[in-house]
Amino acid sequence: MITLWELGGRDGRRYSLFSWRTRMALRHKQLEFESKPVCMSDKAAIAFSGGKTVPVVKDGEIVVRDSWKIAEHLEDRYPQAPTLFGGDVGRGVTHALNVWVDRALVQPMLALIVADVHERVDPADEKYFRESMEKIVRMTLEEARAKRAEAMSRLNRTLEPMQALLKRQPWVCGAQPAYADYILFSIFQWARIMSPHEVLEPANPLHAWRERVLDLHGGFARAG
Amino acid sequence: MITLWELGGRDGRRYSLFSWRTRMALRHKQLEFESKPVCMSDKAAIAFSGGKTVPVVKDGEIVVRDSWKIAEHLEDRYPQAPTLFGGDVGRGVTHALNVWVDRALVQPMLALIVADVHERVDPADEKYFRESMEKIVRMTLEEARAKRAEAMSRLNRTLEPMQALLKRQPWVCGAQPAYADYILFSIFQWARIMSPHEVLEPANPLHAWRERVLDLHGGFARAG
Repeated sequence: MITLWELGGRDGRRYSLFSWRTRMALRHKQLEFESKPVCMSDKAAIAFSGGKTVPVVKDGEIVVRDSWKIAEHLEDRYPQAPTLFGGDVGRGVTHALNVWVDRALVQPMLALIVADVHERVDPADEKYFRESMEKIVRMTLEEARAKRAEAMSRLNRTLEPMQALLKRQPWVCGAQPAYADYILFSIFQWARIMSPHEVLEPANPLHAWRERVLDLHGGFARAG
Repeated sequence: MITLWELGGRDGRRYSLFSWRTRMALRHKQLEFESKPVCMSDKAAIAFSGGKTVPVVKDGEIVVRDSWKIAEHLEDRYPQAPTLFGGDVGRGVTHALNVWVDRALVQPMLALIVADVHERVDPADEKYFRESMEKIVRMTLEEARAKRAEAMSRLNRTLEPMQALLKRQPWVCGAQPAYADYILFSIFQWARIMSPHEVLEPANPLHAWRERVLDLHGGFARAG
């Protein structure tokens, strides 16, 4: 039995982008799991993991935290299920993409949606979220909302190579989706669940690709 | 027999970043090749390829142009030799990295070294190079030289995720080098061959990684 501890928001939302990487990896590996929502401000709930952040996965007796380490765990423990990385080179280069998304894309997307996210976190997290996120984006939530257009153009500039890529091949991973698709998808799923605004123009190749990801695994992410 | 048409500069320099991807891929596949230097301004020399850019490879009777297509050709034609992509997923994600380097990194590196490159191209290319590159960087070579510090900080910002990655694993491709390493290396090799300035601080993890790439295949790129 696999249990996934992840951020819970208003109305049952599961909104952590990192936990969406894990969710998609679990479905890709055809594994069932139980979701345990936790508050961002409630570090006690996940103290057993030895860390202060979700996602955390408990797979039998093994506890793994950090979405990248969880993906590696699933790939190594379930080698017969569909592959996340397609081998060692694929794992290495997927890790490169993971670090790029975390360090180049998460921040522009956060700046774009942070005020919307704030309205949809668990009420118990509102104060904690505001304080920690205003430090990260270096402005108030209200300023962030006012600078939406600027954040959007910064995000689009950073996304441009992925847009060009998806004109040339249907998935980040080539002819079939795998973990690198879920990494990139996670930032759009975060926006989709936590913001009423569409962040992708219909003509953008990323839009059609995101729809394809939403259709995967029986429309699993579409229901999320 | 494999022949590689590629840009030739002063004193026998082979300076095209794209051709360095091909050179490293050929060595990785343990293939010998003959290098044919061409001038950037001499489109007639490669008209046989059906295109206007190098690198072009002739492998037996097969002509392939564009460094990415050449890498795919070598992987498919020489499957028994060491792998460039490590399978389909690795190929897809490596392509993503290829597009990212081309669209996010080449331009900042060009802005940094363009005036130095100009001094080392084939004299027959000087005028052509200045005219075409000044359009691309949207300033004169002299302005580009004056704005070196600015270009350097833009390059470093864009490289930051790769710097973080190479603190966590020794190669872009994980535990062993493969084509994605050569893609990233190509921009540094371009600078190394065409500029007297060091672009990487010794403490930068990218510096040690670049040294490791230079040591590969019997120090092949170090001699280049």
